Amino acid sequence: MEKIILTKILKGFKDSLPNEEIFKSNLIENLTGVYRSYGFVPIDTPALEYTDILLRKSNGETEKQVFRFNDNGGRDISLRFDLTVPFARFVAEHKNELYFPFKRYHIAKVWRGEKPQAGRYREFTQCDFDIIGSDSAYSDFEILSLMKESLKKIGVDNIVIHLNHLGIFKRFLNKIGCIDKSNDILRLVDKKQKIEANDFINEMVELVGKKNADLIMDYITPRQDFILTLKNIEKLAGGPEKDTQRIKDIYLMITTSGIEEFYTLDPSITRGLDYYTGIVYETFLTKMPSIGSICSGGRYDNLAGLYINEKITGVGASIGIDRLIAGLTELNTVNRMSGSYIDIEIYNTDNSLMPKYILLANKLRDKGLSVEIFPDTKKMSQQYAVTDKKNIPYGIFLTKDDIEKNTFTLKNLKNREVIENIDI
Amino acid sequence: MEKIILTKILKGFKDSLPNEEIFKSNLIENLTGVYRSYGFVPIDTPALEYTDILLRKSNGETEKQVFRFNDNGGRDISLRFDLTVPFARFVAEHKNELYFPFKRYHIAKVWRGEKPQAGRYREFTQCDFDIIGSDSAYSDFEILSLMKESLKKIGVDNIVIHLNHLGIFKRFLNKIGCIDKSNDILRLVDKKQKIEANDFINEMVELVGKKNADLIMDYITPRQDFILTLKNIEKLAGGPEKDTQRIKDIYLMITTSGIEEFYTLDPSITRGLDYYTGIVYETFLTKMPSIGSICSGGRYDNLAGLYINEKITGVGASIGIDRLIAGLTELNTVNRMSGSYIDIEIYNTDNSLMPKYILLANKLRDKGLSVEIFPDTKKMSQQYAVTDKKNIPYGIFLTKDDIEKNTFTLKNLKNREVIENIDI
Repeated sequence: MEKIILTKILKGFKDSLPNEEIFKSNLIENLTGVYRSYGFVPIDTPALEYTDILLRKSNGETEKQVFRFNDNGGRDISLRFDLTVPFARFVAEHKNELYFPFKRYHIAKVWRGEKPQAGRYREFTQCDFDIIGSDSAYSDFEILSLMKESLKKIGVDNIVIHLNHLGIFKRFLNKIGCIDKSNDILRLVDKKQKIEANDFINEMVELVGKKNADLIMDYITPRQDFILTLKNIEKLAGGPEKDTQRIKDIYLMITTSGIEEFYTLDPSITRGLDYYTGIVYETFLTKMPSIGSICSGGRYDNLAGLYINEKITGVGASIGIDRLIAGLTELNTVNRMSGSYIDIEIYNTDNSLMPKYILLANKLRDKGLSVEIFPDTKKMSQQYAVTDKKNIPYGIFLTKDDIEKNTFTLKNLKNREVIENIDI
Repeated sequence: MEKIILTKILKGFKDSLPNEEIFKSNLIENLTGVYRSYGFVPIDTPALEYTDILLRKSNGETEKQVFRFNDNGGRDISLRFDLTVPFARFVAEHKNELYFPFKRYHIAKVWRGEKPQAGRYREFTQCDFDIIGSDSAYSDFEILSLMKESLKKIGVDNIVIHLNHLGIFKRFLNKIGCIDKSNDILRLVDKKQKIEANDFINEMVELVGKKNADLIMDYITPRQDFILTLKNIEKLAGGPEKDTQRIKDIYLMITTSGIEEFYTLDPSITRGLDYYTGIVYETFLTKMPSIGSICSGGRYDNLAGLYINEKITGVGASIGIDRLIAGLTELNTVNRMSGSYIDIEIYNTDNSLMPKYILLANKLRDKGLSVEIFPDTKKMSQQYAVTDKKNIPYGIFLTKDDIEKNTFTLKNLKNREVIENIDI
């Protein structure tokens, strides 16, 4: 009697098989290494929180997507849907135990009941890094340079970071008499890439009238280079101010580091979220802008305002790890490290020699090598099948003859070259 | 008007502050390094699964503890409460994509609505490592040696691993005519450490009668050493068999590696779970046996039987990371690495020198150092307060004078030694 396979997995969720998980771990370890080397420290928060804590600032959209339920004690709880809200709660909760500036990274899973589609899951890994308690241009620059540095570290070189400053934008909107509509305007500009050019202009005209729509179109259109764009928006906003000086300070640091090729001033970046107050940015793959921004963020002046009566400024960015991996896979620009972490397999040709295999493995491990012993005396074809799948570069054969001579045979499993009689 | 602080966190859940999280990350990275170097590969499974998949083999206890709810689509779903059940489902699901023997590690969070108590949380990190598809003594040994190896790697040297074989135990119970009560007997023996000696004996007598209770007491009592204990249980079970040979094979590998001091044969270890069929083991801190086993497991012969019609044998172990950390903290046996990952802080004494700070930081980073720049020109006492909290060993001062001479000043922040005029 053949039983039916009785397994199923939730829609929008998936298992991660070893090759995927090795690739993802490698990516996260590299990102983490960069954040650490710049003074960022890790934190963690619970996956589950009181719903009213998580949704305190939600719009209806978030509410529909959150995994929400009552626990056995009747508490209304939810799974976190991002790492920003829990971080705000964390800062309010631990303000007196922390020090400022406080620089943290947090790489963890979040859950959203979105409609599943290609590269979009209901469980995904988010990577956030923020500096709070410092309003300096250097902190803005540090996040911007880390975005580039961390993406470079994982082999993503072909990027452009689009930078803007919402303070200058709002000063400009104030000057042309549109400040009361700024949220609508910023949201519409944020949608610009996703809708038809004509529709965009028509909607803008409807919102602010023909004359102002023309001015806004002029404002959001980048010029030939960073400096010319800055001059244009500075002029349109009414001349130099603290906000334009901030962009100049940041740009000086970028050129000092010789990394200006990765940054562009793009006045059409608004992020569409009302909590950003200073610089904002998005990052696009030059070879695949269509997948959207892979790393975004900005400066906010009131992180924990929903929880404490104190303004805490900050600047940060966020990478959607799974979306990035989906993009990289499609682009095929990265070598997917895979298989295992093993240097050498000791094949099992005679189980009675197991103690000798173990002694040799221990010796090689003492030299820093990663060694695996095949646990069963199976046919060589079966043993090779496993070492192929695990992508192991070298194999060792150890026979009774070898043991008498105190030697072994090494096989390069890539080019099949064999070296006999290596001294143990 | 002073606002009230409006944050709260769920009972049994907690935030992880940087020092805790650095300690935990360090521990997990070290464990992971050991598993990888022995050929184990990572996998991941969803935090949420269909309830009927997770609870297919549950007893009432698990059911009461699970975080269970209906999602927006009306599906009955739950958060995973361990990593074993999802692994069984994973193997059934991906059997044809995997290779065997398949060796995986999985370090991830699980959730249980247990009554919160000291060191016990409702969200905790589990670390599982298993070899499936190999029934060899070597695989048993590999798990056993990895338990010791991985704990040693994280500074936990003072351990004893208590080993037993349920096959020999059941052969013995069969011989004395008690096999029909074996589950009750194994469960009672598992409780032995937790109840009064007299109560234990009385319960045993009630279960199997005086004569058999005496025989079982004899069986489960360890002798002076591994070999003598083995001889005793072998005799009581009716002489040598495949099961006792398995223990001999494992013990030969242990002595071959010279690690026998860490292992004891303890016939009173039963694990109380009915899915183990071969060896079973628990690990105790010699200086703190009272916290219970910090790493346990065993061999099972039908991992995925609830999901597919095929027997898959395996052997594995599991570390409760948070419980282990609680134990280590109480013992104070490990140095809690803390603060940050930074080697050098460049203090900010003059914000106009920021481009020079950045150039120096980049130069030091190119040499492989982790360097942080203090982002704001704050009072030195405030800057020192942060670098103290972050436990940074060295500070750099760079003044206008220094820049003219192309030098800097280095301060050892531990002993306050200062070296001036170091060439950039």
